[in-house]
Amino acid sequence: MLIVQKFGGSSVADAGRIRNVAAIIAESYLEGHEMVVVLSAQGDTTDDLLEKAAELNQAPSKRELDMLLATGEQQSIALMAMALEAMGLPVVSLTGWQAGVRTNTDYSAARINRVNTERLRRELDKKRIVLVAGFQGVNKFDDYTTLGRGGSDTTAVALAAALHADKCQIFTDVQGVYTADPRKVPGAKKLDEITYDEMLELASMGAQVLMNRSVQLAKRYGVELEVLSSLVRAPGTKVKEVSRSMEEMKITGIAKDDNVARVTVMQVADRPGSAFRVLNAVARAGINVDMIIQANGRDGTNDMSFVVAQADAEAAEKVLRQRQPAIGFADISVDKDIAKVSVVGAGMMSSVGIASLVFEALNDEHINIQMINTSEVKISCVIDAASADRAVAAIHRKFFEA
Amino acid sequence: MLIVQKFGGSSVADAGRIRNVAAIIAESYLEGHEMVVVLSAQGDTTDDLLEKAAELNQAPSKRELDMLLATGEQQSIALMAMALEAMGLPVVSLTGWQAGVRTNTDYSAARINRVNTERLRRELDKKRIVLVAGFQGVNKFDDYTTLGRGGSDTTAVALAAALHADKCQIFTDVQGVYTADPRKVPGAKKLDEITYDEMLELASMGAQVLMNRSVQLAKRYGVELEVLSSLVRAPGTKVKEVSRSMEEMKITGIAKDDNVARVTVMQVADRPGSAFRVLNAVARAGINVDMIIQANGRDGTNDMSFVVAQADAEAAEKVLRQRQPAIGFADISVDKDIAKVSVVGAGMMSSVGIASLVFEALNDEHINIQMINTSEVKISCVIDAASADRAVAAIHRKFFEA
Repeated sequence: MLIVQKFGGSSVADAGRIRNVAAIIAESYLEGHEMVVVLSAQGDTTDDLLEKAAELNQAPSKRELDMLLATGEQQSIALMAMALEAMGLPVVSLTGWQAGVRTNTDYSAARINRVNTERLRRELDKKRIVLVAGFQGVNKFDDYTTLGRGGSDTTAVALAAALHADKCQIFTDVQGVYTADPRKVPGAKKLDEITYDEMLELASMGAQVLMNRSVQLAKRYGVELEVLSSLVRAPGTKVKEVSRSMEEMKITGIAKDDNVARVTVMQVADRPGSAFRVLNAVARAGINVDMIIQANGRDGTNDMSFVVAQADAEAAEKVLRQRQPAIGFADISVDKDIAKVSVVGAGMMSSVGIASLVFEALNDEHINIQMINTSEVKISCVIDAASADRAVAAIHRKFFEA
Repeated sequence: MLIVQKFGGSSVADAGRIRNVAAIIAESYLEGHEMVVVLSAQGDTTDDLLEKAAELNQAPSKRELDMLLATGEQQSIALMAMALEAMGLPVVSLTGWQAGVRTNTDYSAARINRVNTERLRRELDKKRIVLVAGFQGVNKFDDYTTLGRGGSDTTAVALAAALHADKCQIFTDVQGVYTADPRKVPGAKKLDEITYDEMLELASMGAQVLMNRSVQLAKRYGVELEVLSSLVRAPGTKVKEVSRSMEEMKITGIAKDDNVARVTVMQVADRPGSAFRVLNAVARAGINVDMIIQANGRDGTNDMSFVVAQADAEAAEKVLRQRQPAIGFADISVDKDIAKVSVVGAGMMSSVGIASLVFEALNDEHINIQMINTSEVKISCVIDAASADRAVAAIHRKFFEA
């Protein structure tokens, strides 16, 4: 079997953890599998490098930043190789370049165009454990690029797709994907399986086990993922196209995102195109808008609210104020004191009772719902931030602890 | 003018020093020169990485060691690029691979086979300052290699040769090459010029301003070197084929090497091939032998002494003891309490009085000469280690302070 494994920065933070990971890799290798292992930079390496950079230049070019950051993963693979060598195992480490990871030229947020697998295959044919530096590649200029947040997961999935791997195991510091954040909801249950779409919704809701980008890539190429712990040897959660649990369980998880803000544009003129002009101005500033509601007023104007990432709230306000005359509205308010609670499940839409159960749970706790959004696999409610944890626990009880 | 500059690890150890070096580079660039700048890893980076490696594996493969160590120079060039960007200057950093440095497959001690200058030329044509990671290259497997001690100097000279640079400036923490170690001999004078051969002899004598390898390379390709300080803005010492000073000054410098040991093989049978067998055994163990003397005994045997690096003394003794029956000798002794003092000068052999002046200086100080060796450009004397500094000062007075 050809297995791609990925270990994050905390899993390789020091010599002890590196040896622990080496033991996991060795176990799979000694079972007779072909092994490709993707590693992130050690613990705080990336932050340390960014600090060094900031001392010299507050706004360095992304090309040089990538040149600098790419060294972190290179150190990880070399050190892991040494740990495996010390166990007497055949191993070779490869940077993104050597592993054939070719990207576009978008420094610091590069996309993988293709993976040239010749070298990887050659090393696998020699029965070597192949360690690959995650998060990085090279572009058409032969310059180093990095893939942005969650880049090492993306590397792992891309390699698994290109090599037609049988498994792609993403090792993290949690034991899998849970029905809710287990640190907040004591009754949270680990899921054995989850669909790509459910995982995508959970990830975008702030359950940061896997970045959306790697899940999307896995879905596109049919790479079956497994999320599991590098500290506890136990089966994790499988992420795949159709999960066995779909028929049994209508919802898979509940997530909270309190990194959001609500922007309300007051008294927007109620004429054709007003809403478009508001949203277009925000979109052209590169800001993603999530939920939108419009409340009809009696004076021929509407109040319009939408949700953005908290970091984008000021920018959204600024761009709208600049266009206030052209758009036509009275004022803007920004509320960062909100949270988005989402219920995710592929079986949701075929079951009409889900939404009402969610509303019932919130009503039981006297939590006011400010905005509601639904999709094929998700119901999201915006509520006040202070009630968010209580809301998640209440919904979780309703669905999983009955 | 195309100038290659090289800065060592202490010159880029922290943000302040990086900015200092950036100012030196900028000055030359703003004078209108094409600039290629070779950098070493920051201060203790290499040692820190070696320490991390040792935690995991006492004897890691050289391939993985090179993979690890190559990150140090990559960080330096990225950080320096950011410092130059902050000054508003166009700059690009290139790893050994990107700069076209192709080496043989001798990991950790690779030799440069060739430099493919296409990318370097292309970047220079864009009027960019080109920063190149020293000490590293790639081999025919596209694996990272490092060049061993003094590797960044070698990179600088190789790039200067390949690009037909007008100048190759090696910046260090001293102001140039001196007639003797200025920390030990207060009257030591900085040389304006020195020939390659003189520099080679001085370097091999322990005056570690430049490694022999880079001087040899410079000599072979006629690259004129200048050794100068990154801290004091003043002309340094030029290293070239024929120095102006050759006719004026008969000797250029005096150096001490106390990192040596004398191995004495006692009562070697006085028959054809005995000396050969001794030296052959040592050579086959990969140990360089420097000076050799043989003292005829009256009993049909000879005592044979030779000088090796102190680190090789035990190995030399061991290999000879293993072959004692085949070679035929009575015993071996090793004396590490010696030093080699050398007088170097291209004009030496044409002037018969040099040697006698050296002996006179040592005699005045009642220093006993144990061994003597002469070459075209050098006279070396082995004396007891305790007298070495006194010997250098005495000889220096005789030649330079009269």
